[in-house]
Amino acid sequence: MRSLVWMMALGIVGICNATTAPAAVPAAADSGPVLTSIAEWSRMADTGKRAPLFAAEEQRAVAQVRAAMQAGIDVPVPRDAGGGYTHEQHKRNYRSIYNAGTLYRLTGNRDYAGFARDLLLAYAKLYPTLGPHPQSGHQVPGRLFWQVLNDSVWLVYAIQGYDAIRDTLSAVDRRTIDEQVFRRMAKFLAGTPANFDLIHNHATWAAAGVGMTGYVLRDREFVDQALLGSRHDGKSGFLRQIEQLFSPDGYYTEGPYYQRYALGPFELFARVIERNEPQRHIFDFHGGALLKAVDAVIQESYAGLLLPLNDAIKDKGLDSEEIVAAVAIAYARTRDARLLDIAKRQGRTVLTSDGLTVAEGLQAGREQPFDFRSLLLRDGPAGERGGLALLRKGGDAGPLLVMKATAQGMGHGHFDRLNWLFYDNGHEVVGDYGSARFLNINAKHGGIYLKENTSWAKQTVAHNTLVVDGRSQFDGKLADAEAHYPDILLFETTNGLQIAAARMTGAYAGVAATRTLALVEHPDLALPVVVDLLRVQGEWPAQYDLPLHFNGHIIETGFEAARNEALRPVLGDAAGYQHLWVDAVAPASREPRSLTWLTAGRFYTYRFVASEPSQALIVESGAHDPEFNLRREPALIRRVTGANNVSFAAALEPHGRYDGTAETVTGDENRIRALTLDSSDEGDVVTVSLVSNKGVAIVIARDPTPGRAHRLAAGGRSYEWTGPYVRVDF
Amino acid sequence: MRSLVWMMALGIVGICNATTAPAAVPAAADSGPVLTSIAEWSRMADTGKRAPLFAAEEQRAVAQVRAAMQAGIDVPVPRDAGGGYTHEQHKRNYRSIYNAGTLYRLTGNRDYAGFARDLLLAYAKLYPTLGPHPQSGHQVPGRLFWQVLNDSVWLVYAIQGYDAIRDTLSAVDRRTIDEQVFRRMAKFLAGTPANFDLIHNHATWAAAGVGMTGYVLRDREFVDQALLGSRHDGKSGFLRQIEQLFSPDGYYTEGPYYQRYALGPFELFARVIERNEPQRHIFDFHGGALLKAVDAVIQESYAGLLLPLNDAIKDKGLDSEEIVAAVAIAYARTRDARLLDIAKRQGRTVLTSDGLTVAEGLQAGREQPFDFRSLLLRDGPAGERGGLALLRKGGDAGPLLVMKATAQGMGHGHFDRLNWLFYDNGHEVVGDYGSARFLNINAKHGGIYLKENTSWAKQTVAHNTLVVDGRSQFDGKLADAEAHYPDILLFETTNGLQIAAARMTGAYAGVAATRTLALVEHPDLALPVVVDLLRVQGEWPAQYDLPLHFNGHIIETGFEAARNEALRPVLGDAAGYQHLWVDAVAPASREPRSLTWLTAGRFYTYRFVASEPSQALIVESGAHDPEFNLRREPALIRRVTGANNVSFAAALEPHGRYDGTAETVTGDENRIRALTLDSSDEGDVVTVSLVSNKGVAIVIARDPTPGRAHRLAAGGRSYEWTGPYVRVDF
Repeated sequence: MRSLVWMMALGIVGICNATTAPAAVPAAADSGPVLTSIAEWSRMADTGKRAPLFAAEEQRAVAQVRAAMQAGIDVPVPRDAGGGYTHEQHKRNYRSIYNAGTLYRLTGNRDYAGFARDLLLAYAKLYPTLGPHPQSGHQVPGRLFWQVLNDSVWLVYAIQGYDAIRDTLSAVDRRTIDEQVFRRMAKFLAGTPANFDLIHNHATWAAAGVGMTGYVLRDREFVDQALLGSRHDGKSGFLRQIEQLFSPDGYYTEGPYYQRYALGPFELFARVIERNEPQRHIFDFHGGALLKAVDAVIQESYAGLLLPLNDAIKDKGLDSEEIVAAVAIAYARTRDARLLDIAKRQGRTVLTSDGLTVAEGLQAGREQPFDFRSLLLRDGPAGERGGLALLRKGGDAGPLLVMKATAQGMGHGHFDRLNWLFYDNGHEVVGDYGSARFLNINAKHGGIYLKENTSWAKQTVAHNTLVVDGRSQFDGKLADAEAHYPDILLFETTNGLQIAAARMTGAYAGVAATRTLALVEHPDLALPVVVDLLRVQGEWPAQYDLPLHFNGHIIETGFEAARNEALRPVLGDAAGYQHLWVDAVAPASREPRSLTWLTAGRFYTYRFVASEPSQALIVESGAHDPEFNLRREPALIRRVTGANNVSFAAALEPHGRYDGTAETVTGDENRIRALTLDSSDEGDVVTVSLVSNKGVAIVIARDPTPGRAHRLAAGGRSYEWTGPYVRVDF
Repeated sequence: MRSLVWMMALGIVGICNATTAPAAVPAAADSGPVLTSIAEWSRMADTGKRAPLFAAEEQRAVAQVRAAMQAGIDVPVPRDAGGGYTHEQHKRNYRSIYNAGTLYRLTGNRDYAGFARDLLLAYAKLYPTLGPHPQSGHQVPGRLFWQVLNDSVWLVYAIQGYDAIRDTLSAVDRRTIDEQVFRRMAKFLAGTPANFDLIHNHATWAAAGVGMTGYVLRDREFVDQALLGSRHDGKSGFLRQIEQLFSPDGYYTEGPYYQRYALGPFELFARVIERNEPQRHIFDFHGGALLKAVDAVIQESYAGLLLPLNDAIKDKGLDSEEIVAAVAIAYARTRDARLLDIAKRQGRTVLTSDGLTVAEGLQAGREQPFDFRSLLLRDGPAGERGGLALLRKGGDAGPLLVMKATAQGMGHGHFDRLNWLFYDNGHEVVGDYGSARFLNINAKHGGIYLKENTSWAKQTVAHNTLVVDGRSQFDGKLADAEAHYPDILLFETTNGLQIAAARMTGAYAGVAATRTLALVEHPDLALPVVVDLLRVQGEWPAQYDLPLHFNGHIIETGFEAARNEALRPVLGDAAGYQHLWVDAVAPASREPRSLTWLTAGRFYTYRFVASEPSQALIVESGAHDPEFNLRREPALIRRVTGANNVSFAAALEPHGRYDGTAETVTGDENRIRALTLDSSDEGDVVTVSLVSNKGVAIVIARDPTPGRAHRLAAGGRSYEWTGPYVRVDF
């Protein structure tokens, strides 16, 4: 059975005339399913009900489709932007078509097929009448939806539902839906090169929809356009997208939020290609990037939520439907039992044979704990464009130190080279704003990226990295930013010390910055501490600002500062500074300072010192926000003015616990007594002294060349070492 | 066995000389337990291990005591304020004494008794050397702790542990501990009338400690002082405290947070009295207030957390240890199976025979769902001092509308007559700040009430109720506030409409305010809406401010307002206004306005209109807060200037749902189309018009006398009704 279906799908078995279609795929009268094989459907129908996770999904689909059938056919003329009625109804409809097709195959009940058919016949009437969507703004307009992206998503799901019922239709209905809905839609998408021929996730959705349509309509032209671009030249299209957008480590260049989103069409279409053209070995393509990407996106999460790098909605998690589908596809290929752990947390799967494989694996108790671990995910097609360093201790909800030294990540990238984040105890401690938008919320401009996304969220000062002279990296210019990548200098995870370093040049004229971040353990510390050294070399004097966006309530400011208790001035007038109110300013000093805050019952003390006198400003976001689009969040800004070169050192210590139920506080005392910095031409010595009178020095060479020998004396100690850094305990 | 113990405890069986002690309780050589009977201990030892919840508590106690035994005896000279080392160590010690005594009785292992003895002998050396605690501020100083309250708590727990091991001691050790620790401590507490003779929860802790000590030392004097006050006159002491602090409905006048706290000594000491003086029928005293209070405190919660009225820490919940103990005591008396539901949620119980009864009840599956329901909890010794109205729909985490029309609630009360709160969907929607303090956090002044508690949290403007001329109710004077109570005018919960009304006079010279709050259901509304009418009658023109402290992110301001985008002025200079920044000001208008915010995935639209032109101000707390002690939270203030009389009407509509995982929005459109208010001398008509073209009018008579007939015409409709209000659907 299976081999016959494969052969038909591949056009090897022509059943009747092949005259009106391109050579490779005859427009066979055959209309059986090709996106999922008959054998797969049979297996699901036969055994799906015995695997609880799969059976629950089937019931969920039944509930959705039954409700839609009761509501009746509703295919409205497109009118609303994201979140509005017609937008949401067309989204519901593609789910109904997808689910109804699936349920027909799982149950044999013709009512489901009939409902999908009736919906599609309504679209066959509507679709040919449509021009550009009335709400389209500066995005490429769709027809059913305001942006063409949503049209592509509609096609990806609807074509799968259609594939499942196509052989139940009369020839007339089949021809009507083939021609008036799917061929028109695929032609429209493939014929919009401004979207289709991009190297971008929007184009991936379009390619997946067009390619799947090609297989279903037995139209090789569509398949080739999907794989190789609208001009068949391989400069765009699905294959090129894989090569350009994924690194050899499976990192997706736009970052975790869009990695999650892109995984949908990448994995779904790859699965269809594998089934119809197994000789392509698509899952091995580009070093197996599509399977590595599933592991990578899981690693790029904390306590179930994706790291909010670049334009990201902060509540998006591993339970999103794209990752549910991707986990099923990856597990069915690899039988990697760690993925079952993720599926178990998701509590969901997909109604495909891969989903059934997951459900059966869980039913058999085959899951193994997923290993949330430290790793460097290189960015760029050859891994040559910086990377994302993840330093963990203690799994999913333990300490996680993130260094973002990736490439720009295209239009959704932020100007935040050498940014860092810290998570602990299940919560964000040093954070990232994510994006300024309210996804699908009509009242917030329909859910698009708000102007504050540009004026605040993308700007450098909204991140925990260097701002020179009050301007964002690359002056906020995308083309410049795309042309420069950070260099990863160091990534080592040894017992008790995990360390990463990267260098950025080109972001500011005449300025090079090198950041070293370490997660340091010590027997006298209950929890690992973060040590941060940012070294800046400038060709002329400048103002260097280093923000820290902490999440929590200030418990203690360990320094004197002039407070703006009544009127708070705004910090600046551009590059995000116009959004910051100034709460307090401490004068320039060389003395180490500290700030303690409380996050979810745990205290965090941030100690900081620089090689030049620095001010400390406590600020809050929210100024110049007429529509209340921004969250108001605190930050500390360290400022050095008029120096060429400066080293900024810091240590972040988690300590203690406040238990509101029991009204007890334990371990609120710091175990770090002092932080010092000694800088010389040879290197920087960051010394963390403990209350126990022990301590640890992290010594970072200015020249990171491996194997080079160094010697320096600082703070009454002398250090000799080889290589980019040394840890010395005393 | 039991009767002999009772008789001994009551001093009926004297075993040896009774010459040196007060007449009623001979200082018998008998030293067996009296706070818990031998029979109870035997039952726990015999069967406790078979009830999983009880057995788990025992294991928890074992872990605590084993850790303490390993750490060794540590009874430091008192030095630190709340949250500091010596403070926390003395707290750990009373737990160790209590748990070790209990474990000795449960296991027979003498090591536990020896550890409790050694701890107490260390206290016997330390305690006689102590004077007032060095950190005592303006509170009554303790000796072990900075405030005497903590000393009382120490005594309540330690005396119970001591009672359990007292008969294991040599005569010398027993005498040493009797005299040097417990008699001294009880004498100190009973001899500090500034604390002991209050009608206040601090005095209840002291009474419980002194009274339990009296029973254990067979010293009737202490027992009588505990029950009747230090002068035995019944003007203070435990019995008077019950009568004065609890209403006949079981409401505790300080509010839920302190009700929770006071339940500890009230219930524990009552249980000891019941055991030693059963003829007092203490649980029937004052109308059974101590059992009603357990039900009441549970009702005063939402989604597991206590309503944060008055000085309250917002994360305090039903799982606090006092409520765990109180539930066990109440269940063992009443066998009310609903209480087992609460015990199940708590997942904890106490190592007493009552705790065992709870554990056995749960093991047998006897629990019934606790009925979180609508009710009026009257305040005051005779229920004559206003009350707290709770209007619910849908249990623990469904809509809950709260009207606070209680008495002041003593020193921890807020100046917030006729305040209201709203909870929905498991979250706070219209909230209360609670108190400004960081309990037990050393860096925040040791955890005491901060100055911002007075300058902000207690002030009227920090609540959702009327502020006249920018001053707080009673000008913030406690004595005046204690002397005036609101009148409850109405409380009815019928199908589809729940309504409460109360009137306040005396809070402002020449001003009376009447508030009516209703939870209104309608077939065309998915969720109940809140309707609010606040009618103000003044003898001269004034500025009336009505704040709304909403919890969420602003989605849409349905009105034009001048925005202070850069510098934000401070709203005033006193009565809490000095803490408010002004974000936006809309000019005075009679037009209805709306504000929509998003809380935990659900939209809330607040529509508001007044009978006089009113401004709308959007403000945020946080100004004049040099130590960053305040949370920064938004509020809307409606302002009418220069009128004598005004009616403020509002409707709050929950609608829709944003699902971040699925990226879908459902039902974000309002189902309310308009809100209108028609005011006349006869009454106020609040009309809620729906998108469905239906609607509902809530008509509120100015004269609330039951049975009085009314007639008025408004908005093209005429209304005739009898009584304080009528609902009319159209």
